[in-house]
Amino acid sequence: MPKIVNHDHRKELIAEAAWRVIRREGLEAVSVRNVADEAGISLGSLRHYFETQSELLAFAMRLVSERVSRRIGKLPFSGDPRRDIGLVIAEILPLDEERRGEAEVWLAFAGKAIVDPTIRELSREVHGQLHAGFAKMLRVLVEQKIAREGLDAEYETKRLHALVDGLVVHHVTCPESVAADEMMRIVERHVDSLIAEPGASPGRS
Amino acid sequence: MPKIVNHDHRKELIAEAAWRVIRREGLEAVSVRNVADEAGISLGSLRHYFETQSELLAFAMRLVSERVSRRIGKLPFSGDPRRDIGLVIAEILPLDEERRGEAEVWLAFAGKAIVDPTIRELSREVHGQLHAGFAKMLRVLVEQKIAREGLDAEYETKRLHALVDGLVVHHVTCPESVAADEMMRIVERHVDSLIAEPGASPGRS
Repeated sequence: MPKIVNHDHRKELIAEAAWRVIRREGLEAVSVRNVADEAGISLGSLRHYFETQSELLAFAMRLVSERVSRRIGKLPFSGDPRRDIGLVIAEILPLDEERRGEAEVWLAFAGKAIVDPTIRELSREVHGQLHAGFAKMLRVLVEQKIAREGLDAEYETKRLHALVDGLVVHHVTCPESVAADEMMRIVERHVDSLIAEPGASPGRS
Repeated sequence: MPKIVNHDHRKELIAEAAWRVIRREGLEAVSVRNVADEAGISLGSLRHYFETQSELLAFAMRLVSERVSRRIGKLPFSGDPRRDIGLVIAEILPLDEERRGEAEVWLAFAGKAIVDPTIRELSREVHGQLHAGFAKMLRVLVEQKIAREGLDAEYETKRLHALVDGLVVHHVTCPESVAADEMMRIVERHVDSLIAEPGASPGRS
């Protein structure tokens, strides 16, 4: 009987091997050969999925944002925007080993974006996806009429996105400066400052 | 007559050559040989100042924070904390080619902090210096009695530091997402939110 192989699953296993190489040795160590070794497959098998290092890197970077999106898609949303925004941001912050891995891979890509045009494009793509996510959070606050009076959604989107990414950089490069639970508390307090009455229940019409 | 050589100046010229290599080819390209070539000096001359690549990298990273500190030390402070905090943060943000270079070098180091213990230590050191700078800004607001009522200086220090570093990452990796003047406006608006009456003159006793 022939083996049944799920190709998407195989690609993700290979990308996870690339993540391990990136976290252990850096982006420069990602070659089709190194990643095949790390994944425990032959170079030929890997090349069946990724012909070049560039294809592999692109898939590995996009998988970071894909994984975050998938987790967000499965969240048990409560309908309370304050709580739900907290849940969404918690999926971006490096609060456990899985998310820490994603954050480290993201930062490794960011650090190479200046010198590598392909990586710069990938960083832009992921930045755009995250920005759209933060814009949506602000839109929910405004539409549900719980945003602080006079809230400027565009400014608040950029401020929240920058705050979250800054905390990620601080925690990943210097964990003792801001612990995981403190990152989350800072974000929750910031989100509260965007809401008219943080203690009140959401308005439902 | 023997040539008079200013050793500190020479070391900085070599570190600037290392910065150019980092910005063009990445941190991995920094070797004593590459940097000697870039600086237009012999390997022997370079080794007179830096015996190893590690020493050179450490000096190059510390010079980023040293340059920022020097510029801050020369600022024409007005005594108006709101304006003066803006001046200080402007020296950290990549608002011109010089500061953009420093920001790119900082981000390249941050991206390698995960895989290289020496670079991690350097990142921590520079993080600590910046954190102390932000803590001082908040202290000035509190001491001059112009801080918003109930301001939590520790929380606001971490929030401001993360906001600024997040904006730096966004501008460096994705300049079209937040332009230089917009970064500055976001920071000024954020600082205004920390002040009791942003329009009023500072209290003097």
